[in-house]
Amino acid sequence: MNNMKETGNISIHTENIFPIIKKFLYSDHEIFLRELVSNAVDASQKIKRLSSIGEFNGELGELKVKVSFDKEAKTITISDNGIGMTAEEIKKYINQIAFSGATEFVEKYKDKGDDKGIIGHFGLGFYSAFMVASEVEIISKSHQEGAEAAQWICDGSTEYTINSAEKADRGTDIILHIAEDSEEFLDEFRLKSILEKYGKFLPIPIEFQEKTINNPSPLWTKSPSELTDEDYLNFYEELYPFQEKPLFWIHLNVDYPFNLTGILYFPKVKNEFQLQREKIQLYSRQVFITDEVKDIVPEFLMLLHGVIDSPDIPLNVSRSFLQADSNVKKINSYITKKVADKLQELFKSDRPGFEEKFANIGLFIKYGMISDEKFFEKAKDFCLVETTANKLYTLDEYAEEVQALQTDKDGQKVYLYTTDVQQQDAFIQSAIQKGYSVLKMDSMIDAHFINQMESKIEKTQWKRVDADSIDKLIDTGIQLEAILTDDQKNAVKAIFEETLNDKQKQVSVEAMSPDELPAIVTQNEFMRRMSDMSKTGGGGMGMFGNMPMTYQITINANHPLINKLIDLPSDEEKKNLAKQIADLALLSQNLLTGADLTAFIKRTVSGF
Amino acid sequence: MNNMKETGNISIHTENIFPIIKKFLYSDHEIFLRELVSNAVDASQKIKRLSSIGEFNGELGELKVKVSFDKEAKTITISDNGIGMTAEEIKKYINQIAFSGATEFVEKYKDKGDDKGIIGHFGLGFYSAFMVASEVEIISKSHQEGAEAAQWICDGSTEYTINSAEKADRGTDIILHIAEDSEEFLDEFRLKSILEKYGKFLPIPIEFQEKTINNPSPLWTKSPSELTDEDYLNFYEELYPFQEKPLFWIHLNVDYPFNLTGILYFPKVKNEFQLQREKIQLYSRQVFITDEVKDIVPEFLMLLHGVIDSPDIPLNVSRSFLQADSNVKKINSYITKKVADKLQELFKSDRPGFEEKFANIGLFIKYGMISDEKFFEKAKDFCLVETTANKLYTLDEYAEEVQALQTDKDGQKVYLYTTDVQQQDAFIQSAIQKGYSVLKMDSMIDAHFINQMESKIEKTQWKRVDADSIDKLIDTGIQLEAILTDDQKNAVKAIFEETLNDKQKQVSVEAMSPDELPAIVTQNEFMRRMSDMSKTGGGGMGMFGNMPMTYQITINANHPLINKLIDLPSDEEKKNLAKQIADLALLSQNLLTGADLTAFIKRTVSGF
Repeated sequence: MNNMKETGNISIHTENIFPIIKKFLYSDHEIFLRELVSNAVDASQKIKRLSSIGEFNGELGELKVKVSFDKEAKTITISDNGIGMTAEEIKKYINQIAFSGATEFVEKYKDKGDDKGIIGHFGLGFYSAFMVASEVEIISKSHQEGAEAAQWICDGSTEYTINSAEKADRGTDIILHIAEDSEEFLDEFRLKSILEKYGKFLPIPIEFQEKTINNPSPLWTKSPSELTDEDYLNFYEELYPFQEKPLFWIHLNVDYPFNLTGILYFPKVKNEFQLQREKIQLYSRQVFITDEVKDIVPEFLMLLHGVIDSPDIPLNVSRSFLQADSNVKKINSYITKKVADKLQELFKSDRPGFEEKFANIGLFIKYGMISDEKFFEKAKDFCLVETTANKLYTLDEYAEEVQALQTDKDGQKVYLYTTDVQQQDAFIQSAIQKGYSVLKMDSMIDAHFINQMESKIEKTQWKRVDADSIDKLIDTGIQLEAILTDDQKNAVKAIFEETLNDKQKQVSVEAMSPDELPAIVTQNEFMRRMSDMSKTGGGGMGMFGNMPMTYQITINANHPLINKLIDLPSDEEKKNLAKQIADLALLSQNLLTGADLTAFIKRTVSGF
Repeated sequence: MNNMKETGNISIHTENIFPIIKKFLYSDHEIFLRELVSNAVDASQKIKRLSSIGEFNGELGELKVKVSFDKEAKTITISDNGIGMTAEEIKKYINQIAFSGATEFVEKYKDKGDDKGIIGHFGLGFYSAFMVASEVEIISKSHQEGAEAAQWICDGSTEYTINSAEKADRGTDIILHIAEDSEEFLDEFRLKSILEKYGKFLPIPIEFQEKTINNPSPLWTKSPSELTDEDYLNFYEELYPFQEKPLFWIHLNVDYPFNLTGILYFPKVKNEFQLQREKIQLYSRQVFITDEVKDIVPEFLMLLHGVIDSPDIPLNVSRSFLQADSNVKKINSYITKKVADKLQELFKSDRPGFEEKFANIGLFIKYGMISDEKFFEKAKDFCLVETTANKLYTLDEYAEEVQALQTDKDGQKVYLYTTDVQQQDAFIQSAIQKGYSVLKMDSMIDAHFINQMESKIEKTQWKRVDADSIDKLIDTGIQLEAILTDDQKNAVKAIFEETLNDKQKQVSVEAMSPDELPAIVTQNEFMRRMSDMSKTGGGGMGMFGNMPMTYQITINANHPLINKLIDLPSDEEKKNLAKQIADLALLSQNLLTGADLTAFIKRTVSGF
């Protein structure tokens, strides 16, 4: 066996990988325009920089990027009057894929000023032109004195031709000869909408059809101290035309340990159905990247609107990579902290204003408290709860409020709540008559919020107002005496059981106040929650979803009508009255439906 | 100006693009295992092929792929006893990225048999190893007689070392020295679950921890004529353990113009909430690719379960590319056609069986009819509608059924439907009493289905059973005479208007049958549909969402209770009775809620 040992270099077959780069690099073909316009902006920023450090002494002129198209000739042209390239530079930067000109430039000049404003990163962007063009032409003239213009042409194979050319002014024209399958891009509205999508806030004026389509100095790049409320509201209008005004906003500005600027707005949100995600736009050095900010912005803050601009967020990468990126994690907790601080400040400086806004921001706050431990710690001091009397309390204030009347015999505070003020009206009225307070917990998030509150706040218990008869809801240990004998109670129970004839409806006879209804229907708090959770897909709760809901029918032993029922001469009459009493109880819980309801109505009509 | 003209070749800087390939090629790092195991399977398939065409005369042995790991040494090893590589072949195939060995192999042997079973495509797959490994080692021995084993090592830079090595048997070992940030993969359960996810049906046995983890001959690769119902049900159980049995299935098998095999199962689906998308698994030559089959399977068939295997579906590409791919479009319409044909066949061959299944497949069918014109054309003959009497009709049969009684004076057939048999019970009972038929249209899709039917079937009109009073619902031109004088009618109207005191409830007094209720609440069909559509987010319907719903309260001029009301001595008494009558009407439409309902119940209790 002859022994060999050899080292060498892995090489990439350009002709094999080139089609992959051209076709699969970006998922949206329209990205070509973002990439080429970004390059043109880069070239403009570079000449500006050279001028500012005295390395270019010529006339800077009015820097701008022009995009035009010719439907007949089937071309799209992107022109700039930036730094320009010599034939040698074209060969160096364009012919060698993945050699990023921007990287080298930043490397070279990084000591002479900040490196902001140079967009290019991978150096692959230029080649996205081949996603839509069958032939790409570059005509460029360098800023260097006496430079000659050069033309580069490539038909999408790996072979190019370079030529001398005629060009009067400094700068670069990229001419795309659009491929047959991409002629959709030879359209004014299409081009305009792509430019507006990606280039709306590019730092150099972008001209299309004789008009500048961008705002080169968007609000987030300015200092908050220079800005008025009106400026922020106008910028919101610019971002989201025809939308309701936002409630307030946060101007983000970090330099260390990562770079991030932006403005986050709190929109008015009344219920979960109005939630509009994908309203935060992500920029990198003023180039629009995406409005899918999942993983960059904490889940519960995706409800916010606005812009985030950071060169430190890795682009064109996979989700799993994003999730693991340490900068992204830091950005996440920075934003959470800023939002919590802003809310706390609003709460402290203007309680009435905060209360007024709470209907619109409560959802954020509760969502945040459930999903983020750190946010919970801050928010528990300013999160509000609202009673059916429309009074707002902090959690501490509310504990104080109900301390006296709603503490049960075991020293637990019982918080009563309603999920539907309309449907649970009869129960709410009973509770209020007793001097209890009832909280409105009517959004989908409240079920989770209640679970969290119970686990976080000691010695409290939450009960829906219809979870039991009013005297048992908060068990103070005091029992009303029943007028009925035990035999009478059993007789009443038997009559109702026979009348209802339904195993899912459990009858009991209890001593209640004579002012209450003759019968009420309640639902055990624990069982109802299990059932609710299984409906919203809570983990492993399938078994409860398949279980029919059980209701308690409690007959009020002290109600005069029950006494009357006992004294009725015939079983027939007893059952008729029992039926009507039970139907009314079911009715108040929205449980009398279909044929039963129709029969009740007909019976009642003929009773008049 | 000196004229230059020069041609050259674009080159890719390997050291710049290599990190991009390593890190960003796949969004999930776990893919490395799919790629390496697929390569090992390829190598095994190749030696099998060579043997079958007589180009390899050695002992084939038991072909298998072994995956193992060593937590201490921090390695994962993938071994095969396939074709193997010489040092020269390693240099050729491995060192030149994007030179796909599989492509060349298929090219060379394509005339000697079918080219199925070779997975490799881009030739980039091997490099995915560097997503998780800091160093990758290949030890390989070619199948060629007298071949020497070779070792290749690369630490993730572009430099490699190749060495002679000791290896007893034919085949290739890939040894990954796992990087620190990827140690999560040095875990039995993690590796097993990745292997099971991607390799469950690979055509060569895959061994892990002494066990074969795959089924190398999955059902879809077999001929339907060899298979029994039990085979299909068992395979379903293998794919989706613990799920309810499917209703029926379709075995797909196409050779031209694209290659596709697969089995689609119809699960039991009772309502929209049960819909489980992402239940169809996409394979390419038995390698699992994804369960996101959007764009490959028509939207409405995403409700199906099963597998699709096609080498013609482009992998690792963007969504926009998929949408434009002509193969994908053809696959789409092929699947739609097959499903329609299967349903038609079931309908024709076993009507009772089809009716029984309809509750579970109606949703697919209606969804398909709405979203796919071609499917509509076929499905309109076997789509069924169901009456409240639980009788099923085809659309043609139903038109026949209602022809006599439900054609209005303009010759239009009026189809009555209910969206809620419970809530609309009183109205359904009135309609049935009149001899009308009422269809159950209670799923979310039915609203769209009704709209489509109206636009497709001429001279038909759909009305919800509570859209008008029973005599006006189907206007036959015959009018009941009212017992009341016009003055009396106006007086009644005034009393009810005063009692209700609500502009959203419009009172009218009409002659209805004395058997009907003294008052009913209806909702205009058109306005209700607009309002429903705005709730489910129908385009541009926002204006209706903000409009309060209007109801018609129709007082039955011929009901004895209305006569009684007129004769009551005092206004007070008239209003009390009117209140009770109106409340009962609202009650039957679930419109009496909150404080009004509580008051009604208390009033009724004290009336006993």
